[in-house]
Amino acid sequence: MLAEFDLIRHYFTAPGAADSRVALGIGDDATLLVPRAGHELAVSVDTSVTNVHFPDDAPASAVGHRALAVAVSDLAAMGARARWCWMALTLDARRFADEDAADAWLSGYAQGFLGGCAAYDSTLVGGDVTSGTLAISVTVMGDVPTGQALKRSGAVVGDVVAVTGALGGGAGGLELWQRGERDLSHPLLRRYLLPEPRLEAGMALRGLATSAMDISDGLLADLGHIRRASNVDVQLDADAVPLAEGLTAALGADAARRAALSGGDDYELLITIAPENFARAQAALDAQGLALSAVGRCVAPGAVSSGDGSVDAAAGDYHGWQHFAPASATVPGDSR
Amino acid sequence: MLAEFDLIRHYFTAPGAADSRVALGIGDDATLLVPRAGHELAVSVDTSVTNVHFPDDAPASAVGHRALAVAVSDLAAMGARARWCWMALTLDARRFADEDAADAWLSGYAQGFLGGCAAYDSTLVGGDVTSGTLAISVTVMGDVPTGQALKRSGAVVGDVVAVTGALGGGAGGLELWQRGERDLSHPLLRRYLLPEPRLEAGMALRGLATSAMDISDGLLADLGHIRRASNVDVQLDADAVPLAEGLTAALGADAARRAALSGGDDYELLITIAPENFARAQAALDAQGLALSAVGRCVAPGAVSSGDGSVDAAAGDYHGWQHFAPASATVPGDSR
Repeated sequence: MLAEFDLIRHYFTAPGAADSRVALGIGDDATLLVPRAGHELAVSVDTSVTNVHFPDDAPASAVGHRALAVAVSDLAAMGARARWCWMALTLDARRFADEDAADAWLSGYAQGFLGGCAAYDSTLVGGDVTSGTLAISVTVMGDVPTGQALKRSGAVVGDVVAVTGALGGGAGGLELWQRGERDLSHPLLRRYLLPEPRLEAGMALRGLATSAMDISDGLLADLGHIRRASNVDVQLDADAVPLAEGLTAALGADAARRAALSGGDDYELLITIAPENFARAQAALDAQGLALSAVGRCVAPGAVSSGDGSVDAAAGDYHGWQHFAPASATVPGDSR
Repeated sequence: MLAEFDLIRHYFTAPGAADSRVALGIGDDATLLVPRAGHELAVSVDTSVTNVHFPDDAPASAVGHRALAVAVSDLAAMGARARWCWMALTLDARRFADEDAADAWLSGYAQGFLGGCAAYDSTLVGGDVTSGTLAISVTVMGDVPTGQALKRSGAVVGDVVAVTGALGGGAGGLELWQRGERDLSHPLLRRYLLPEPRLEAGMALRGLATSAMDISDGLLADLGHIRRASNVDVQLDADAVPLAEGLTAALGADAARRAALSGGDDYELLITIAPENFARAQAALDAQGLALSAVGRCVAPGAVSSGDGSVDAAAGDYHGWQHFAPASATVPGDSR
């Protein structure tokens, strides 16, 4: 295998224009960056481990794309613009003992990762390559005009709860993968292996959404985060949750709804928004070709009772909802 | 095992004063930071993998300290002040199946990591916890007044080559550990398991050193980085390289010198500096209780010939020096 420096230079030299805000890029002890005045920095770190966050036999390009995309999704959830990323790549020495196999895997991986960098306008400015179990820790940094970041803590009673796109595709894609489906053009498999962070949507929702986060653990679990951070309860209309394309056909109606409510890996945005701003937000996202669907309402803590077609998302401990989780959506040991 | 969020809250809630430049800390999708005007950001990522970068049976507190310290060392090498860090921790589920063992390990690990945060003034502001082979990816961010960072590329012909502290202790400590030594008060074991990044030294060398880096791969290999980045050759006086305390007694004279030249994991600074500034830099570091030793001279590429007591560091490909590396200093599979 190539030495670290050569490996990085060989596979990860990104094309594209020079970034005038990178004072010193890959190749020194640290990267030097020039932050923009009037902006806060948004930073997040996400680790993807083989057989935990992605199948060990997933296409290398999907592994690279996905590792970056799930990290960038956290910037989208803040309403931030992506700027830079760092990649700490841990490679399995056994897998890479054969030079041709290593080259094929690394080429595919780099294509996926750097393709994401280009798509999200995130410049790869550093990282680390080590040996061990295949894993990728991606650090992403973006910026957002001071005071305009979307937090989890701004929801108030009366706000509409809404989600972008459609849910359940991540869990549905995992289920299909486990059944042996390998055609990456299948929409559910794409949702699972090639998720797209909602960066443009997040930026469009600045000044409109009162809170936001990305849906990585499943809608019900992630609603719990908003509830706790904002001190509201949520009445959820489960029938209003939009299902990913092909999900019902693949899983059946019941499993499809469970996947949409409790499956993870969708990387859509979950937001709260004042009712008077909802139509405007919907129009802004519609211009991006992305749906925004109202799925519930913020209510005072303890004020919720169940109704027809709705599930009471405030009914005590969220762990109570784990019986909704399809086994296919839970990878053992995942504590993401 | 506790869920991710609970685990972070339980073990990694750092004490200490609030950081006014953290607009939003742990618990949202991303951290929000307020950079300082007139400064560049210095960012580095370092992954430490069990049995590659540290022994699997190393004390948990040392694992935590070391994972942070080796990352912070890259900031020291830039002359930056440490500000913030993120910790992506991958835990071995089998090791942590037993709750008491997990608690003991995590408590020790957190003590080591947070102790380093306090010592280096680096606030833990986010991270990720996943399952897999025990590994830690640490992202560190610091800042440095614009234009004052120490790079690898500034060395010029005539500069003195110098190192802080003493070398070989990292490799010597690993050798002792492999022989069964477990007393962490042994100075060599401390150098290996509890390295101290030279943050204060790096800041004191701003405006004095013409180039700098930290010594993690061994002096000879790291000199190669300075040579390539600055386009100079280096004439090294091997006899002038200061040896770590107790190194000759532990390894014998020959192995001690090899460890100092080619062993890794010392995390001292390697700098170049104009001769007229050397005494001033030495006095500044002496005030910190740290030695600065001249070990060579920058010469024009191709101008070097070997002399008594010196090794020709410009003799072709640096890979030629790998026969100097003691086996004890090379952990199989490490590509750091």
